[in-house]
Amino acid sequence: MLAEEEEVQNERNPAFVLRAVKDVVFEDRPIPQLRDPHHVRVHIAQTGICGSDVHYWQRGRIGDFILKSPIILGHESSGVVVQIGSEVKNVKPGDRVAIEPGVPCRRCDYCRSGAYNLCADTVFAATPPWDGTLAKYYLVASDYVYPIPDHMSMEEGALVEPTAVGVQITKVADLRAGQTVLVLGCGPIGVMCQAIAKAYGAKKVIGVDVVQSRLDFAKTFGADDCFLPPKPEAGSDPVEHSEKVANMIKERFGLGEGADVVLECTGAEPCIQMGVFAARKGGIYVQAGMGKENVVFPITTACIRALVIKGSIRYTTGCYPAAVDLVASGKIDVKRLITNRFDFEKAEDAFELVRAAKPDVFKVMIAGVQ
Amino acid sequence: MLAEEEEVQNERNPAFVLRAVKDVVFEDRPIPQLRDPHHVRVHIAQTGICGSDVHYWQRGRIGDFILKSPIILGHESSGVVVQIGSEVKNVKPGDRVAIEPGVPCRRCDYCRSGAYNLCADTVFAATPPWDGTLAKYYLVASDYVYPIPDHMSMEEGALVEPTAVGVQITKVADLRAGQTVLVLGCGPIGVMCQAIAKAYGAKKVIGVDVVQSRLDFAKTFGADDCFLPPKPEAGSDPVEHSEKVANMIKERFGLGEGADVVLECTGAEPCIQMGVFAARKGGIYVQAGMGKENVVFPITTACIRALVIKGSIRYTTGCYPAAVDLVASGKIDVKRLITNRFDFEKAEDAFELVRAAKPDVFKVMIAGVQ
Amino acid sequence: MLAEEEEVQNERNPAFVLRAVKDVVFEDRPIPQLRDPHHVRVHIAQTGICGSDVHYWQRGRIGDFILKSPIILGHESSGVVVQIGSEVKNVKPGDRVAIEPGVPCRRCDYCRSGAYNLCADTVFAATPPWDGTLAKYYLVASDYVYPIPDHMSMEEGALVEPTAVGVQITKVADLRAGQTVLVLGCGPIGVMCQAIAKAYGAKKVIGVDVVQSRLDFAKTFGADDCFLPPKPEAGSDPVEHSEKVANMIKERFGLGEGADVVLECTGAEPCIQMGVFAARKGGIYVQAGMGKENVVFPITTACIRALVIKGSIRYTTGCYPAAVDLVASGKIDVKRLITNRFDFEKAEDAFELVRAAKPDVFKVMIAGVQ
Amino acid sequence: MLAEEEEVQNERNPAFVLRAVKDVVFEDRPIPQLRDPHHVRVHIAQTGICGSDVHYWQRGRIGDFILKSPIILGHESSGVVVQIGSEVKNVKPGDRVAIEPGVPCRRCDYCRSGAYNLCADTVFAATPPWDGTLAKYYLVASDYVYPIPDHMSMEEGALVEPTAVGVQITKVADLRAGQTVLVLGCGPIGVMCQAIAKAYGAKKVIGVDVVQSRLDFAKTFGADDCFLPPKPEAGSDPVEHSEKVANMIKERFGLGEGADVVLECTGAEPCIQMGVFAARKGGIYVQAGMGKENVVFPITTACIRALVIKGSIRYTTGCYPAAVDLVASGKIDVKRLITNRFDFEKAEDAFELVRAAKPDVFKVMIAGVQ
Repeated sequence: MLAEEEEVQNERNPAFVLRAVKDVVFEDRPIPQLRDPHHVRVHIAQTGICGSDVHYWQRGRIGDFILKSPIILGHESSGVVVQIGSEVKNVKPGDRVAIEPGVPCRRCDYCRSGAYNLCADTVFAATPPWDGTLAKYYLVASDYVYPIPDHMSMEEGALVEPTAVGVQITKVADLRAGQTVLVLGCGPIGVMCQAIAKAYGAKKVIGVDVVQSRLDFAKTFGADDCFLPPKPEAGSDPVEHSEKVANMIKERFGLGEGADVVLECTGAEPCIQMGVFAARKGGIYVQAGMGKENVVFPITTACIRALVIKGSIRYTTGCYPAAVDLVASGKIDVKRLITNRFDFEKAEDAFELVRAAKPDVFKVMIAGVQ
Repeated sequence: MLAEEEEVQNERNPAFVLRAVKDVVFEDRPIPQLRDPHHVRVHIAQTGICGSDVHYWQRGRIGDFILKSPIILGHESSGVVVQIGSEVKNVKPGDRVAIEPGVPCRRCDYCRSGAYNLCADTVFAATPPWDGTLAKYYLVASDYVYPIPDHMSMEEGALVEPTAVGVQITKVADLRAGQTVLVLGCGPIGVMCQAIAKAYGAKKVIGVDVVQSRLDFAKTFGADDCFLPPKPEAGSDPVEHSEKVANMIKERFGLGEGADVVLECTGAEPCIQMGVFAARKGGIYVQAGMGKENVVFPITTACIRALVIKGSIRYTTGCYPAAVDLVASGKIDVKRLITNRFDFEKAEDAFELVRAAKPDVFKVMIAGVQ
Repeated sequence: MLAEEEEVQNERNPAFVLRAVKDVVFEDRPIPQLRDPHHVRVHIAQTGICGSDVHYWQRGRIGDFILKSPIILGHESSGVVVQIGSEVKNVKPGDRVAIEPGVPCRRCDYCRSGAYNLCADTVFAATPPWDGTLAKYYLVASDYVYPIPDHMSMEEGALVEPTAVGVQITKVADLRAGQTVLVLGCGPIGVMCQAIAKAYGAKKVIGVDVVQSRLDFAKTFGADDCFLPPKPEAGSDPVEHSEKVANMIKERFGLGEGADVVLECTGAEPCIQMGVFAARKGGIYVQAGMGKENVVFPITTACIRALVIKGSIRYTTGCYPAAVDLVASGKIDVKRLITNRFDFEKAEDAFELVRAAKPDVFKVMIAGVQ
Repeated sequence: MLAEEEEVQNERNPAFVLRAVKDVVFEDRPIPQLRDPHHVRVHIAQTGICGSDVHYWQRGRIGDFILKSPIILGHESSGVVVQIGSEVKNVKPGDRVAIEPGVPCRRCDYCRSGAYNLCADTVFAATPPWDGTLAKYYLVASDYVYPIPDHMSMEEGALVEPTAVGVQITKVADLRAGQTVLVLGCGPIGVMCQAIAKAYGAKKVIGVDVVQSRLDFAKTFGADDCFLPPKPEAGSDPVEHSEKVANMIKERFGLGEGADVVLECTGAEPCIQMGVFAARKGGIYVQAGMGKENVVFPITTACIRALVIKGSIRYTTGCYPAAVDLVASGKIDVKRLITNRFDFEKAEDAFELVRAAKPDVFKVMIAGVQ
């Protein structure tokens, strides 16, 4: 270990740091040192950019998480284990892994009862004040790295993260084989949910989006059918329009009195309303997208139809292994989501591209430092 | 049976009929005849008045149920079985029973899977176009009448209905012993939920209402503590005010980061918002009250906190037996809810009294025809 | 309707009747008449033979169901609707349907709460004293027939029944995508469970049987891997042997400390023991096979490992539609189960063949009367 | 801290040590030192003796846990916090606490998914090779000590442990208000389950035992009714006898076709059989008692009746807080379980008394070292 430690001393750890709103810079950070016998140090190989990364860059906050001091960006990453603590048994140096970016406290009631996604003390990559993965090295608890098989690429390993987000959404939805599933939104998380639902035996998966090219992609990725909602007529009541569109969807796709499961992956007010109206009585609606804090919501419909409306956030135990399986087995071809690739040194360009939000840019990857 | 049938021929069946909006009248209706070997005919003894009865009287519709032809009013009733079909085994003439007012189709997927409260073809008393119980006789399927013990009064038998509504709400809430329960509203359903939660081993039950006298009553009926929310300051944002009040409730009653279970029994927009903000992460919120169709709703909070929001409507299997037990065992003293009593001939006065909505009028009962 | 009724009068209804133990005969039975507006009369097209049919033939009883008077045999059938009651809406004459063979009372607590498979008053085809489907015509409630698409054959329609048995088993098992599933037995129900588990996204499905040819078939039908357990050494303790085999299975197939889900489809004592030992801590074990009434059972293991052991019997709401979908979508190729076909007149030969229990006889079909 | 550490240096830590089978001794052990910022050191006040403590003393093993080197005995304890780590926030020195005796690894899938009772790496007091609580001091993770209110005695604090065992059993049973509950066994865990079921709103709780004095106590502690099963007639089949007794219980106590929930707290073969026969169709049976490894078990009954049979072991998140509430609120008067009290120096006498298993000895307490 001494030789290795010496080597570490001489090594650099370049990092892509958000210093303040709209102010990013490359810095040399100290190599993170194992502080716990369960720690592992990972050499980052690939990182996908997520909307939340861009949000912190442009606005400096999401909810109660406020940028007050510099943080390294990035949280959708894969890499190679380079150092392990004395108690680590699940991986060894050289192992290629997907990294789950949030390590919870393990001691609060949420952690102890299996809902660690709700732990208030989670150290989550690139969520202030915690550093992210866009550096050469990242330190993480060993049970939050998951080996990936040889035939999976490092890019695929990084995309286990959005896959795991989708797995959690379908888990929250208690999604069962044979159900009809309506997914609002055909962005990365939306199409992931569609593909997972299909892999899990859904009877029919319908994708909805306002961009035709996304619908076209969705139909090749997992959705059985897609729908582009008509715009409201001038002066029409927005909620009534949402209900009308919901009824169009039910009729067009033979959903009877509604979908068994609705997965809302946009956070857009009309989609939220549409989703509630489109669920069958006793159906499940999952809110996974985030937009406006408050929306006009058809609460009486939710009551009378005995809907079950649930929020989905982050991941829980089993999501990462399931996501690795979905990718490794070829059930979800995550590579197809990648539209753009950048070297580490061009990270800012990658962020600019995501910020521009062009319809033909889907998933942007940043390669790690060699 | 012949003698009895003859007697029936000579008998009258006075009924309190809603002919059109705001137009009620007493009519002699034919004695209902058994059309099915599972039918029972009940001589109605007591009927409680519910807000929905008054609503049909004053407005002629609730949701898709629209008064198009005259219906007999009333649906919270007890009575004595006077005639039974050839296949009936659970009751016999002379039995005193509580009547569940909705008999479902038994054939749709909802019925077949245990969610008969969602059956679209339910024959529900006093819901257009079906007649209610405010007559001398009511015909119902034998499995929808429940014998009550001798020590229960007929008034208590009629109040099994709102008790069963509360049982269903706590069932939807998956309420467990040891939980903290926040109930919004201290009307008949609200205080019922509070008392049931307490009988089911809740750790702490908090009632909220805007009428002090209702809070005072609630504290003696089931709630451990009560809260009268302050009015919003002029010009304040309504949703922010709701969040502020929710935080006051959490702090005042030591709920930590929120209640395990929130039961919304008002349908009022500020209460709905307050309830969402007052639930703990991963907590359950049940919408049981009905008011405005659409409300401004903190959907992002619901998402981030992974709340489970469920609608509760009517009752399911087991609610009536559980409600009879709660009343019969003395765990819930439903008699205390009754503030006013009327003879059958004074039914319109009873309805007027409920319509006036005075704070000291809680439950109004109408005695049956001898 | 009059002309049709007349035609019915002149028609014959040949039936294959079990008069007493080992005593079958062809009889002309009256055409069954609709007695309820929800009834449908089906012209039977194909019937599969099940072990229970043979059991009644040879022994005259299963559990509390005892042959006391003649019954028509057969319960796995498809057919064409020829007559419908006045209230029937889901099918019309000419529709090709799969028939669910048990119609429950719809009134008991089991029926009303969605567990109609437990209804004591179910009229179940070919279960004494109720007649089965091996006749020209069968009368059944309309919600217990399920239309099948044109591209499904009548044989496939009849095999919806064992598919639905498998669907209920996986439903009882609360089977989720991504799980490891151990299925004990590779007979018709065993391989069905394997194929369903695979269609529902199971991570790994292992089949176990003592007949190599069945294992070979299972691997082509749904199982990822198969296992033929070694015989116990002379004088070894049977339970210890079962535990040893369970450990071999865990090791051979990389199940770690056990399978997430064990489906027992044999009823054989060593398999039951093996299954309990092979489940992971907190895992689910479903007893679907029936053999000896009582077996030596590792109860302490079940306790310490916090297993969930559940019995599966018949079907519940949703099983038939799911089974039709699995067959219609091609996810399960039920035709491959058929090894022998007989004309109606040769029904006794068909029963003899099943009774002989040769390893190469899997599913035997009897065509209906033209 | 220095002064305190010095004091600690001079202090003694007397311990009651099991050196080998049937070989106990008092030893001075080093004061346990905090090794983790989340550790707390507790000065033990009271310890109850449990059957498992005596089992290790007399036989040296339970299942895979084998005494290979000396361990301190005892695991049902309360005490006063005397030292806390730098990160501890839930307690402070001087706090009176109940101690949950098993601290899991927090990293395995069981721990991460809320089933820490199944963690293979739990450090469990007085389970080889881990030391127990029968010493002056005990070291434990801060989230596994629970403050008790001032009005609870230290004896009551120690008896939170068996209360928590009962809470977990009822949690595994998914016990709901309004259910009928049959509890096999009226020992400490049995009567605890009876009292908890009653506090949680059970409709009827029946206790079964073969010792009349235990039944008499049970009726005053929580059971609504009790039953002493008749002995089998000479030469009768044991399983048939069990079924006969189950039917007697159903009839005697008006359980209809069986109890909603059966809690087996004896591990005795006839009780296990009786419990399976006594559960209603679709009912829940929980195996909590441990006796013979393998028993003759009515598996076909379990299958046909679609029973849910679950093992209960140790406790999960929420059990200790619920147990503290049950005791603190007076809902369970655990003091009444105590029949004998010993000073720490007389610990061996206490163990001898428990080993003698006299019917009038229920719970034996050992006071801590001053």
